[in-house]
Amino acid sequence: MEEITIKDIARFCNVGVSTVSRAINNHPDINPETKKMIMDTIRRHGYIPNNSARNLKRTDGKCIAVLVKGITNPFFADAIQIIEDEIKRKKYSMVIRHVESNEDEVDVALELVKEKRLAGIIFLGGYFSHSDEKLRKLHIPFILSTVGCAPDGMHHDNYSSLSVDDEKEGYRMTDYLIRQGHTRIAILAARPNDASIGKMRLNGYKRALKDHGIRVDETLICHMPEEIKSYSMESGYVMTRKLMDSGKEFTAIFALSDTMAVGACRAIFEEGKNVPRDYSVAGFDGIELCSYYNPTLTTIRQPVQDIAEESVKLLFDILAGRSGHQHKIFPGVLLEQESTRKL
Amino acid sequence: MEEITIKDIARFCNVGVSTVSRAINNHPDINPETKKMIMDTIRRHGYIPNNSARNLKRTDGKCIAVLVKGITNPFFADAIQIIEDEIKRKKYSMVIRHVESNEDEVDVALELVKEKRLAGIIFLGGYFSHSDEKLRKLHIPFILSTVGCAPDGMHHDNYSSLSVDDEKEGYRMTDYLIRQGHTRIAILAARPNDASIGKMRLNGYKRALKDHGIRVDETLICHMPEEIKSYSMESGYVMTRKLMDSGKEFTAIFALSDTMAVGACRAIFEEGKNVPRDYSVAGFDGIELCSYYNPTLTTIRQPVQDIAEESVKLLFDILAGRSGHQHKIFPGVLLEQESTRKL
Repeated sequence: MEEITIKDIARFCNVGVSTVSRAINNHPDINPETKKMIMDTIRRHGYIPNNSARNLKRTDGKCIAVLVKGITNPFFADAIQIIEDEIKRKKYSMVIRHVESNEDEVDVALELVKEKRLAGIIFLGGYFSHSDEKLRKLHIPFILSTVGCAPDGMHHDNYSSLSVDDEKEGYRMTDYLIRQGHTRIAILAARPNDASIGKMRLNGYKRALKDHGIRVDETLICHMPEEIKSYSMESGYVMTRKLMDSGKEFTAIFALSDTMAVGACRAIFEEGKNVPRDYSVAGFDGIELCSYYNPTLTTIRQPVQDIAEESVKLLFDILAGRSGHQHKIFPGVLLEQESTRKL
Repeated sequence: MEEITIKDIARFCNVGVSTVSRAINNHPDINPETKKMIMDTIRRHGYIPNNSARNLKRTDGKCIAVLVKGITNPFFADAIQIIEDEIKRKKYSMVIRHVESNEDEVDVALELVKEKRLAGIIFLGGYFSHSDEKLRKLHIPFILSTVGCAPDGMHHDNYSSLSVDDEKEGYRMTDYLIRQGHTRIAILAARPNDASIGKMRLNGYKRALKDHGIRVDETLICHMPEEIKSYSMESGYVMTRKLMDSGKEFTAIFALSDTMAVGACRAIFEEGKNVPRDYSVAGFDGIELCSYYNPTLTTIRQPVQDIAEESVKLLFDILAGRSGHQHKIFPGVLLEQESTRKL
């Protein structure tokens, strides 16, 4: 006896194969009466859907991609772990891809969407500035989690975002250092061409100085060297060595990541100087190391647990039709520890 | 006109559908004459293989899974990055899954193999002790990278392994501390029931003490508390606090990871003591932080770059039939830095 195929069922019902597939897979986008007719026909003819193909499709569709810029930052290791736990709890699988700093995250995402059948995407870290036209090609919901983004680049209804306000948090730390009596504050910033969270935090630094009537001294703005991994301990170390060698006067360093703050401290120790006696050093992110370093590090703590959990929750709400896209700002917390002092 | 299907082609050729599929997909496991006959038939009838299904299958087969135990250890973040870069260079995609300490990595792997069509698996970290019977179910080649494993549990021809000799490296550090004049050496070890790399490093510690005629004092062997993340800074901190509170005399601490060594230092600082003046502290792994912490940390550096690169290279050699399974031991390097001193 010839085996009944899905095409036979489609012919019997006078519908397309894709409609039969939608009926079998409980797809929401099908008329209930049509679905009933198809399922009755299937039962009558004893058609057994091709299980392997169906499973493949189902499990592939139950996959969330996480695209990460800056994996070596321990801040993201924490976020990834939380996101993975949440995705697993929902019985979905997770594909992770690291995006190099010279790669376009949407191109990487489009490639992944082509390869895998994804349900949604979470972008983690970096900066987002893409045309709506390009983003529409993704066809699936995506969430920007701790990603800086251009306020006017994309239509708000087409994506969700969850992050701190990087400009405001950069302002918060600089304002704090100034109130501690510092006026010569060096900043360890991103690369000169950066248009990302690094730039936003730097803008906050500049605005705080101006608000306190302090001139922005461009020679105290240090940019990451191109040849060194960005936001690494090594980059903080190299920038601080160069700054000290330059003979510029300063009393505090604001590093745009905790890892760079650690590199800055090491450079200061090597000169036989002390933190915070000779120089105050502050970081950004609030990684675990801040409470274990010697001295403990003053920093802006990002609420990584909340942001990561909420990112997954929102994505699943959108997938289930329970929510539209949303934009949430989480406040950072200034953690005063041993590495900064009042002048 | 009815569209020609793969089943029609199979019927015309008097072969199974899977044989037609093998012909279309250039599978090696097909008689060349049969393949020619099938391809001729396909051309004659103008059959167009279902591209989406074919692409799905192809790309799914070009995927390597990396299963990681202990993602929060920065040691693995480095290894993952190197492995991912190498896999991308080979134009394969990578699926990453973290294995919880209470999960069975082979069960997780079997689940992934069922979901995705994987070409191979790299297990990263943890400890391996499974029956050959269970491992045979994986059906695809796998590599144990920086994984401890039971020497007699599995047949050597069925898997590859690349790692340091954890027992030997545990011996190396303990022997070094003894030669520096320390005889009361506390060790921050894994959980009491651990049968993993933690146990092997601990065995090296015990053997070194015995070789130097020093009695093993069980009260100086600290085990990770169950309720705290293993190998974390916090676990090192908690164990060291407890040790100091106990009033036990010791002059050195050997922590089985650099992260735990950092936690140990913090606990010592909080007692108003100094490292290395009051206590010498040594770690294990050789993460970047060792050269940036204050003081810089004496440690055993694992050659993570070499191990990760070789792991991927070997897997692709095996997939291409260029190599059988291999077992490679990489020597660790003792990095003498500021956190230890001669008594």
